Amino acid sequence: MTDVAALALLAERLADAARPITLRYFRTGVEYDVKADASPVTVADREAEAAMRSIIGDAFPEHGILGEEHGAERLAARFVWVLDPIDGTKSFVTGKPLFGTLIALLRDGRPIVGCIDMPALGERWLGIEGRPTTFNGTPVCVRSCGSLDRAWLYATSPQMFRGTEVSAFERLRGGCYAAVWGADLYAYGLLASGRVDLVCEASLQPYDYCAVVPVIQGAGGVITDWQGQPLGLASDGRVLAAGDAALHLKARSALTDA
Amino acid sequence: MTDVAALALLAERLADAARPITLRYFRTGVEYDVKADASPVTVADREAEAAMRSIIGDAFPEHGILGEEHGAERLAARFVWVLDPIDGTKSFVTGKPLFGTLIALLRDGRPIVGCIDMPALGERWLGIEGRPTTFNGTPVCVRSCGSLDRAWLYATSPQMFRGTEVSAFERLRGGCYAAVWGADLYAYGLLASGRVDLVCEASLQPYDYCAVVPVIQGAGGVITDWQGQPLGLASDGRVLAAGDAALHLKARSALTDA
Repeated sequence: MTDVAALALLAERLADAARPITLRYFRTGVEYDVKADASPVTVADREAEAAMRSIIGDAFPEHGILGEEHGAERLAARFVWVLDPIDGTKSFVTGKPLFGTLIALLRDGRPIVGCIDMPALGERWLGIEGRPTTFNGTPVCVRSCGSLDRAWLYATSPQMFRGTEVSAFERLRGGCYAAVWGADLYAYGLLASGRVDLVCEASLQPYDYCAVVPVIQGAGGVITDWQGQPLGLASDGRVLAAGDAALHLKARSALTDA
Repeated sequence: MTDVAALALLAERLADAARPITLRYFRTGVEYDVKADASPVTVADREAEAAMRSIIGDAFPEHGILGEEHGAERLAARFVWVLDPIDGTKSFVTGKPLFGTLIALLRDGRPIVGCIDMPALGERWLGIEGRPTTFNGTPVCVRSCGSLDRAWLYATSPQMFRGTEVSAFERLRGGCYAAVWGADLYAYGLLASGRVDLVCEASLQPYDYCAVVPVIQGAGGVITDWQGQPLGLASDGRVLAAGDAALHLKARSALTDA
């Protein structure tokens, strides 16, 4: 069974399984510890990912899985699931409801199904290759915005930019109408729903960005790395998403101007 | 009638009146324009403030009012209401539910009632002088955290810091365990609920900070300007809030070190 719609159903089953687990630990003084990359990890993270892995293993034991907490298996498989049980861990740990679960399915290295699930808000974006992206079941689409000086830009944190990324991002931000901070995965959902124009980030891992690719593309947007290349497991962690293709080009130009 | 609890009831009535107005415009492609300080203003802002002013005028025509959208009247009165119908306007305009209404009552220049109301989340913090702060009716309190290197810090945007504030804030942020961005008024609620340890901001107006003072104090926290002075209408817009009094001192020291 390799029908994309059927695989998307499984993605929703995974989100359904993760949701009660993360909610059970939200605002309960959940204990966390710190990974090598200094991001906090919680018991809710680990439990939610284990639950999703178990469902995938039962349904498609031949599929690969890359998860933030429990590592990689069978990455050479044609279909690979990429899981982030709690994206926005800093929001989760501090009681802010802007955390969520990211679920991607890659076929031959390309994201074809993506789910942004927001447990505490009861909101879900689902992107499926060749179909319109939905928000809680209703199709959504990006908005047009042809000029940077009218664009609303989201990024999670200024601390995600390192070295030359700092000045590149500042050139982009300085040219935009406004910058808003701190939304993690939710920013990409808002872009798909036509509420913001640009999301520009760096230092991301595949489990941070793979799931948002089909969501953005199915809503009519453009999402690539900062050089305009398609995103996959081997990308460099720099992500640029735009609702308007012309704006994407202008933002890329601002990022790369010397 | 100058009983504080009765005045707090009126604050809740104001929040009740503002909530359906802001929600009616949330995610409807609400039009906005830009004020002198470059922040966006929406028709929802203006309507919500007008509704609150009307209620105050009916109940206490002798009270003063300072509102973000409709200006000041009777600021020399003993009781002055300070209103921000939509704090977190950038969140509101981009469809992110972290916007809310701030309502403060000052007596002789000192905030004695404060309400942080989050319409899209259905959440409300209420602070009343001499009483425990409540979150949706249930008492909440801050958490202890004695050292900066274990502290979680919130600030809305790096762009709120100007001139020497930039390096002062960076000294503080660099000493903290983690910084989280983009929460506006919600950060102060999370601090009152014991979810975060510090909020440090600048470029704030009285309607941005007066309402959070009784919320933080009634939860056991400390909130002042960066010099440790009480906040009032004439403060300089720099705000430092901590759940732990010892941490507040350490954060002030980090901000003022040359």
